[in-house]
Amino acid sequence: MNTVDYYLGLDVGGTGMKTGILSSTGELIQTHTEPTNKDAGPVAGLALMEKALRTCVEKSALNFDSIKAIGAAVPGIIDLKNGIIIDAVNLADWKNVSVKTKLASIFNKPIAFLNDANAAALGEAWYGAGKDAESMAFLTLGTGIGGGLVHQGKLIEGRHGLAGEIGHMRIEMSRPRPCSCGHFGCLEAYAGATSVLKRAYEALAEDFNKISDLHEPAQNKTLSCKHVFDAAVNGDPLANRLVEQTSSALALGIINILHFFDPEKVVLGGGMIAAGDDFLNRIRWFVKDQAFKQCAQGDSICFATLGNNAGITGAAIAAMQLLNRPTL
Amino acid sequence: MNTVDYYLGLDVGGTGMKTGILSSTGELIQTHTEPTNKDAGPVAGLALMEKALRTCVEKSALNFDSIKAIGAAVPGIIDLKNGIIIDAVNLADWKNVSVKTKLASIFNKPIAFLNDANAAALGEAWYGAGKDAESMAFLTLGTGIGGGLVHQGKLIEGRHGLAGEIGHMRIEMSRPRPCSCGHFGCLEAYAGATSVLKRAYEALAEDFNKISDLHEPAQNKTLSCKHVFDAAVNGDPLANRLVEQTSSALALGIINILHFFDPEKVVLGGGMIAAGDDFLNRIRWFVKDQAFKQCAQGDSICFATLGNNAGITGAAIAAMQLLNRPTL
Repeated sequence: MNTVDYYLGLDVGGTGMKTGILSSTGELIQTHTEPTNKDAGPVAGLALMEKALRTCVEKSALNFDSIKAIGAAVPGIIDLKNGIIIDAVNLADWKNVSVKTKLASIFNKPIAFLNDANAAALGEAWYGAGKDAESMAFLTLGTGIGGGLVHQGKLIEGRHGLAGEIGHMRIEMSRPRPCSCGHFGCLEAYAGATSVLKRAYEALAEDFNKISDLHEPAQNKTLSCKHVFDAAVNGDPLANRLVEQTSSALALGIINILHFFDPEKVVLGGGMIAAGDDFLNRIRWFVKDQAFKQCAQGDSICFATLGNNAGITGAAIAAMQLLNRPTL
Repeated sequence: MNTVDYYLGLDVGGTGMKTGILSSTGELIQTHTEPTNKDAGPVAGLALMEKALRTCVEKSALNFDSIKAIGAAVPGIIDLKNGIIIDAVNLADWKNVSVKTKLASIFNKPIAFLNDANAAALGEAWYGAGKDAESMAFLTLGTGIGGGLVHQGKLIEGRHGLAGEIGHMRIEMSRPRPCSCGHFGCLEAYAGATSVLKRAYEALAEDFNKISDLHEPAQNKTLSCKHVFDAAVNGDPLANRLVEQTSSALALGIINILHFFDPEKVVLGGGMIAAGDDFLNRIRWFVKDQAFKQCAQGDSICFATLGNNAGITGAAIAAMQLLNRPTL
């Protein structure tokens, strides 16, 4: 008799502890989010993880016994093997937090532990934009740029859990911009949301005739990436140049992915994809112009489809894969 | 009873048809090379492949019946699925040559068909510098730069067989050098042997005081990469700058590999590794300086050890994997 199993996914973020229950038939049957009080530190944070997971199961019709395993997706610099958050920029004072051991002792179930961008990649590969693809590279376009690689349904995490750190590929050698990582010339320094804003302020400082519509939000200190992308669509020349620079840098990063890994899909997620089709089309155009012909065809570059549920879905899949169920 | 099986590997090159017999216990028990007459065209070439393979088996004590499968590693642009060489720069007039079908009809055995750099990668991963590594990236540093990815003992070939085209990762955006592929800013345009020589001639043209020792071979039109690397070791300042540029560009390419794929080993092969430890140490130094700390440690970057036998070894392993023997 085929019984349905259930797996819990947890996605630890700076604003919320997201949780979800994934069935072995691939349905996300329940979700729940507890707001993260990141300033309360890791002890309170671990208690909040427990609360979020328990509440999620309580909200569903399930008994906790029917949960076979739990997957925890976490941000920051992590020790993958030992399940520790070493340092997370988004979570103040979280240093050397043994998430995996703690969750295992609370719940007495197998715990999968993975990077949050990798979890989102795994979720998209199984049930999102990368469904049915033999291999997929995933990029999260947010403040910074993260990512993950999925090959034949499984994550490639690398020797140190760094595989998929696409934002820190170097795309510029002779005049490299400084990056948040302390090095220079990384993709993130040209195409992350922080970089878009930084370049916007630089360009506005040189727009002596104040042609751009972006001056107003910049003076009000409300300038956002959305302003830049919207202004570009509306024909603002300065904004247009910024979006072209961003798209072409991203395209170079994607070309490097295509020529190195040649995946079936390159899936773009994260806040910046709110910029929509204009942004996607620019990226596709640059890639088509500059990549090897074979790998720049059709819709191989696309936006993610699971949104905020990608992380919890992927975390739950990782939990399932921990129990060695080969396919859902 | 465990019997030993044998697999034939063929490595098609511009100068030779290399063949070898690999046993299922991992020994290369026989090799044979027939010189390639590349101007004689593909019909003669296919006949030469047959001759090389038959001679190799004849030279060994084996009967052809004990060969379970054959692997063919070929250069150029290939149709991986159909086993066709579409176009090979090193083999004049070889266009749309159905290598796999032809070999299958001659020998009536399963035929594996793969890119030559991928074959060398597979060989090094099993029996060379990548032995026992969970994952490995391989770079061939020759006239151009090729490569291959091995993950858990198997090649990642990609959707179009392009995975591992490391030479065509972009590392420069603002002032990109033209590359042989028709695009700009590729690693190969900064670190391939052709690029070293091109940059040497450019630098010599600006060395008005003729300080460099490289002027003499340049005037005799005998200037080679070896001259450049040797002169650098001997303290020639112009040569030193060229080798520094080459090493730092290669290091950027390797950093991209480390941050994207995070392999256990990065193995460098091809003619340029004759430059020796001075070259390797420069590359390691740049990587250590500029990569994420975790992934730039120790001897994770090293030279290949199988030399010319890497391709035939990998081709034979691919033949074996075709028959789904999970481990040797």
